[in-house]
Amino acid sequence: MNNQFAFVGGAHGAWRVQSIKAVRGAALPSVPALDVAPLLTARETGGGWLLRGVVSNLRYAVRGEVESLRARQEGLGREQARCAALIPVRKSDAWWALAQDERRAVFEERSGHTAIGLDYLPAIARQLYHSRDLGEPFDFLTWFEYAPRDASLFEELVARLRATPEWTFVEREIDIRLQRM
Amino acid sequence: MNNQFAFVGGAHGAWRVQSIKAVRGAALPSVPALDVAPLLTARETGGGWLLRGVVSNLRYAVRGEVESLRARQEGLGREQARCAALIPVRKSDAWWALAQDERRAVFEERSGHTAIGLDYLPAIARQLYHSRDLGEPFDFLTWFEYAPRDASLFEELVARLRATPEWTFVEREIDIRLQRM
Repeated sequence: MNNQFAFVGGAHGAWRVQSIKAVRGAALPSVPALDVAPLLTARETGGGWLLRGVVSNLRYAVRGEVESLRARQEGLGREQARCAALIPVRKSDAWWALAQDERRAVFEERSGHTAIGLDYLPAIARQLYHSRDLGEPFDFLTWFEYAPRDASLFEELVARLRATPEWTFVEREIDIRLQRM
Repeated sequence: MNNQFAFVGGAHGAWRVQSIKAVRGAALPSVPALDVAPLLTARETGGGWLLRGVVSNLRYAVRGEVESLRARQEGLGREQARCAALIPVRKSDAWWALAQDERRAVFEERSGHTAIGLDYLPAIARQLYHSRDLGEPFDFLTWFEYAPRDASLFEELVARLRATPEWTFVEREIDIRLQRM
């Protein structure tokens, strides 16, 4: 399927790994490079790792939020966006046991997840990949791309998200910083 | 992953296929039997087909609906439930382009999807398997189990669901009827 991607940490790739930090829970092995590829063509390299995710429909955004995102966001692969971050996240069983209205309330009404993201558009481009239903160790692979001059904006965005009530449901999180080769 | 299942149409299986009817869109090849197994151990048999799905979190039910479902539903595999139906469904791109609040409004406020299902609990046991993010030809595999004496109730349930506004977004649907061997 075209929507399934692999994030391959290993010896080679389009992105140089600058740091891999375990924010919460078990770490991932250190690797020098990362490649992003359609899942079907991706291959794990010795000593590295392969994380799978799929681009899917939005799960919480209401119509007004979808329109705001569309109006402001720019795509991945911009020439000036030479910095990236891959932040795999797993949420707790307690999160997944919540009903849809309860998850929505934590995600947006209490945490302002989409609202926070909007504050940093178009500078910080984002793409969410869903992993949980693929049987992966993480529920989501979150991906961000930005220009070096916007690095401090990105730090602010990540700090704001981590301070939300939503983040109390995060039980594993790795922060991988990257630079385009 | 434990939550991923395969529905294997072929020569053997725990369920005898009584009919396979294309309700909308392309049909599936006729087979004499169906087996349901964890995906990792499942194998396609010659001339048949294999459909994959994963048990995932509820996408639309609010807390009150979750509690109503839990209070009334019974599990799969009941001794008396010797009839089953597998109804794979694919929805249109227009459905998936809707925002969460718009999908919820069609699903429940306008179509009463959960409310209709509740009317037939505990007689008609249900399990939803998600397939779309697995790159499958269907978005969902819907599964129902009931006793032979409740067969007319099941026909009523299916007819009511197909008459909802939600069903105008269904672009492929196969209705497979089964009896336990």
